[in-house]
Amino acid sequence: MAECKNKHILSSINNPADLRGVSQDKLVDVCADLRQYIIDVLSENPGHLGASLGTVELTVALHYVFNTPYDRIVWDVGHQAYGHKILTGRRDEFHTLRRFKGIGGFPNPKESEYDAFIAGHASTSISAAMGMSVAFALKNEQDRHVIAVIGDGAMTGGLAFEGLNNASANPNNLLIILNDNDMAIDHSVGGLSQYLVDITTSQTYNKMRYDVYRGLRKMKLINDDRRENILRFNNSLKALLTQQHNLFEGFSIRYFGPIDGHDVNYLIKILNDIKDMQGPKLLHIKTKKGKGFKPAEESATEWHAPGRFNKETGQRIVVHSLEEPQLYQDVFGHTLVELAEKDDRIVGVTPAMPTGCSMTYMMKAFPDRAFDVGIAEGHAVTFSAGLAKEGMIPFCNVYSSFMQRAYDMLIHDVAIQKLHMVICLDRAGLVGEDGATHHGVFDMAYLRPVPNLVISSPLNELDLRNLMFTGYKTANGPFVIRYPRGKGEKKDWRNEMTILPVGKGRKLREGKDIAVLSLGSIGNEVIKAIQMVESKGISVAHYDMVYLKPIDEELLHEVGQKFTRIITVENGVIKGGLGSAVLEFMADKGYTPLVKRVGVPDEFIEHGSIPELYKLCNMDAESIAGLISSF
Amino acid sequence: MAECKNKHILSSINNPADLRGVSQDKLVDVCADLRQYIIDVLSENPGHLGASLGTVELTVALHYVFNTPYDRIVWDVGHQAYGHKILTGRRDEFHTLRRFKGIGGFPNPKESEYDAFIAGHASTSISAAMGMSVAFALKNEQDRHVIAVIGDGAMTGGLAFEGLNNASANPNNLLIILNDNDMAIDHSVGGLSQYLVDITTSQTYNKMRYDVYRGLRKMKLINDDRRENILRFNNSLKALLTQQHNLFEGFSIRYFGPIDGHDVNYLIKILNDIKDMQGPKLLHIKTKKGKGFKPAEESATEWHAPGRFNKETGQRIVVHSLEEPQLYQDVFGHTLVELAEKDDRIVGVTPAMPTGCSMTYMMKAFPDRAFDVGIAEGHAVTFSAGLAKEGMIPFCNVYSSFMQRAYDMLIHDVAIQKLHMVICLDRAGLVGEDGATHHGVFDMAYLRPVPNLVISSPLNELDLRNLMFTGYKTANGPFVIRYPRGKGEKKDWRNEMTILPVGKGRKLREGKDIAVLSLGSIGNEVIKAIQMVESKGISVAHYDMVYLKPIDEELLHEVGQKFTRIITVENGVIKGGLGSAVLEFMADKGYTPLVKRVGVPDEFIEHGSIPELYKLCNMDAESIAGLISSF
Repeated sequence: MAECKNKHILSSINNPADLRGVSQDKLVDVCADLRQYIIDVLSENPGHLGASLGTVELTVALHYVFNTPYDRIVWDVGHQAYGHKILTGRRDEFHTLRRFKGIGGFPNPKESEYDAFIAGHASTSISAAMGMSVAFALKNEQDRHVIAVIGDGAMTGGLAFEGLNNASANPNNLLIILNDNDMAIDHSVGGLSQYLVDITTSQTYNKMRYDVYRGLRKMKLINDDRRENILRFNNSLKALLTQQHNLFEGFSIRYFGPIDGHDVNYLIKILNDIKDMQGPKLLHIKTKKGKGFKPAEESATEWHAPGRFNKETGQRIVVHSLEEPQLYQDVFGHTLVELAEKDDRIVGVTPAMPTGCSMTYMMKAFPDRAFDVGIAEGHAVTFSAGLAKEGMIPFCNVYSSFMQRAYDMLIHDVAIQKLHMVICLDRAGLVGEDGATHHGVFDMAYLRPVPNLVISSPLNELDLRNLMFTGYKTANGPFVIRYPRGKGEKKDWRNEMTILPVGKGRKLREGKDIAVLSLGSIGNEVIKAIQMVESKGISVAHYDMVYLKPIDEELLHEVGQKFTRIITVENGVIKGGLGSAVLEFMADKGYTPLVKRVGVPDEFIEHGSIPELYKLCNMDAESIAGLISSF
Repeated sequence: MAECKNKHILSSINNPADLRGVSQDKLVDVCADLRQYIIDVLSENPGHLGASLGTVELTVALHYVFNTPYDRIVWDVGHQAYGHKILTGRRDEFHTLRRFKGIGGFPNPKESEYDAFIAGHASTSISAAMGMSVAFALKNEQDRHVIAVIGDGAMTGGLAFEGLNNASANPNNLLIILNDNDMAIDHSVGGLSQYLVDITTSQTYNKMRYDVYRGLRKMKLINDDRRENILRFNNSLKALLTQQHNLFEGFSIRYFGPIDGHDVNYLIKILNDIKDMQGPKLLHIKTKKGKGFKPAEESATEWHAPGRFNKETGQRIVVHSLEEPQLYQDVFGHTLVELAEKDDRIVGVTPAMPTGCSMTYMMKAFPDRAFDVGIAEGHAVTFSAGLAKEGMIPFCNVYSSFMQRAYDMLIHDVAIQKLHMVICLDRAGLVGEDGATHHGVFDMAYLRPVPNLVISSPLNELDLRNLMFTGYKTANGPFVIRYPRGKGEKKDWRNEMTILPVGKGRKLREGKDIAVLSLGSIGNEVIKAIQMVESKGISVAHYDMVYLKPIDEELLHEVGQKFTRIITVENGVIKGGLGSAVLEFMADKGYTPLVKRVGVPDEFIEHGSIPELYKLCNMDAESIAGLISSF
């Protein structure tokens, strides 16, 4: 465990009030300590390194200038917020980050009063912070500041735009800080990204505007007490400089910047200058992901979440070997390229996760046929639908929990029109250390009721390849494949792809006492469980359903006729998924077996390793074996 | 039925090819005919009048200039597309609009090859059209044009922004037409709306840019064959005029306009000028909702979907009387004001549906505490979450089918943090004439698996009031109320509000042969059904569950112990809703009754009157009575 010894300044800061007691000339040292502490701890306990190194100075400046937690900082995507956690009473627990029962990887109000709002998914901060600011206005607590800190990547999400568009619609004093590092997890995408570059190059103009503003304020020619004055000032200034609105001012949000986000004292000066201005405002700061740790600065994507590393040499400690099974993600990436080589209708679409889902292979092999659309899941799906409408076959890869953002697009733009595309839900099921906001556990329940969808899940990486092939080759509508994060089962995964007939499951094992029906890779826990109970003389049949929808009715008739005890096992919420589908079938056909369902219970599951979480949810082999034995 | 007699020009146009054969000087007459025909038909058969009157000239110009259906017009929200339907082979069936088995209210590729993409929900057109345009580029069919027609209201949706942000990311020749009438259904909202006003007032600049562009092109100083030239041209022009980007050009989309959208010949001229330009471009046109029908021009919101009306006098034919039950919507609106009068923590939030959901009463009574955020369901929910986080009690009212857009925000921003707010899902269940895109049938299935939610549904409008009161008064987390479109059951709905204990259902009727469990106003069909079978000597118990979640386990134990035959009835998809919840309970507790489930089958249900659709889905009283009798 990394300790906070010899970090004299940081070790004396137990909360933001302590920080505010430090003299300003020492803040550079605080930043250095904080940065080194993050590097020290994360080198041993993996986490999101790059983003939090980039916000060290901003974090210190915000807590120095604002009266937290009375004032509220809303972090957009908590990857940025490690420094914030360390400064707000969690320094000594920071080494438990993302571990089971340890502190979470994202801000969470349940964890600390300094965490103003949850922040696992991107692009939420402006809307949430605006609600908070409007609430303070309604409650006559206008002295309370609300600050949204949003990265340029998160700014590409539709929700951020909806927030921007509404920011000036009601009285509020929201301060938006645009943390611009030209990176989401991979590179930022789209017109906005180019726009931010353009703004940056017109720095002279912005600097001039700011200087004029300060000058006028000093001369008391303007004051900030009434919003009208400000608006009048802004308009005059515009007239003065004969310039159009910039994008943000197009939304009636006053714009300041861009400024260097690694100059803590300048940040403090600017924040003090603008904090009491009435009305919504945006400060654009430029930062570098991985700032202060050379390898991370040089290769930001690789160091987004690097795993363990040697903090002296900058070597990442890679535990993966070729003798071990590959990641499902790599199997997806390579297989997509294989398929794309044979059919030029195949294209790939990812919302900002090319590295995470391994769309990178496709981007390299077929740059014109792979699309990273930025953090924009809705667009990813509707854009894919447009491609499919004109005869392309998109493989649209979205993390299961992020697909919640595109639910309507899946129903309205894809399913109603029954468009042929393959929807790959990566990181389905419990995802481990990212915790409650990231578990992909709702997908089966929210997709199963949607007409025209085929929904499948592979038992292992060979079947992932087979399902990709089947979805491409035989489907005539939307074909969903949900598969987990992490390693598969086999050393050699390059099987010849075969079709897994749509709506057909398979019997993995004969048995006569109890039938276990499973879907997806959780079936491997079932296989282990059955081995465990074998010695006890319990004869268990095991069926891998392969398809949640259409479900294999022939198989279920066999089960309904032969068994009075059935167990269903799925890696998703227990309400509405595979177990419910089996119950519905049995009821509709008049079978009345006893059915026990294994899956994620009706509560938000916190972070931890996947084995720990399986155990917590009674989804591990031992728990399943116990259930079989006691049934 | 309105006929097309005496409409000499329109009656000779059976498809766009016919239209393109008309000499251009006759197009004003075509527009006049088309407009009158829309008025004639809609005066007798209700529909969305205002939007389609506003796009008459645009529709004619598009089909005149472009080679549809080889070229693709993607309408954003089909309300605009009635003229398009009439010109594309559906003139003589237009009087069946929105009727059971008649033509649909929105574009639908299943209905016509001229309908390029489905369009019931807003803000989809840019993403979908971009996908289509990219597909044509990949297939080397660059001669095919794709045009997205989007209203300024739809432009406030996050998905439209995601589309704009990506429009320049890949090679495509998309033409976006911004149909700006300063109205979604009610007025447009937010910074963008103001921005469009600002653009319009800087018309001189835009006109000058366009003239310079045309001049240079004529002089062959630029040509449009290569994108680089264009960009260079644009940049030079900008330098020339020393102007910043405008918002759209900030996204690298070339901007033209604004121009008069009711001048059909000028529209044609401009469309011809810009149609072959390479790269994405946006034409901003100004139109008037209800154009050409005076009452509709003067009161656009009232005439958005006016019902039947006298086309001579402009009188709306209102069939509603005070002797009849009120709309659920009005009950919601008045009750919210009653509650807000007593507690100033209560606020109202609606995404662009203040009239539809009757938030208008709140907006009038407490303008500072009612928020219309525009077509932005995600923001509506996350903004409400921010308000709730700081102690306000938002009533966030979203149509059930539109809540699909905010699914992730409900999970991530509301449910995980267990924030106290009341989520009103208006138009839950089958909605009638708006059809497949608008039925609010998935909500129970997609919300039931979400932890921390309370989900309720009123049997009638008295219970709607009671549930609003309960959600406000007793809940300590998110409280969902789903209720239908249309009239309630009672003449006098102003009951004194009482608390309906969370998680408690009630027995409406004793019985011993069969138990029927229902949720929500569909229970009134059950009441009628039981009356029908009474004479046959079948003794039926009827339970109104009131709460889908938490479900009343005490009640279900009673049912499980007393009955071997159970029928569940719900106004939503049969997979994953009330019926599944009952099956799950019975399985978990070891009961093995026979269970029949009544609800919406696993297919997209088309448009028709609600009674027709109930019958289609076997959810009407007679069908339920038949099921009881044969069970």
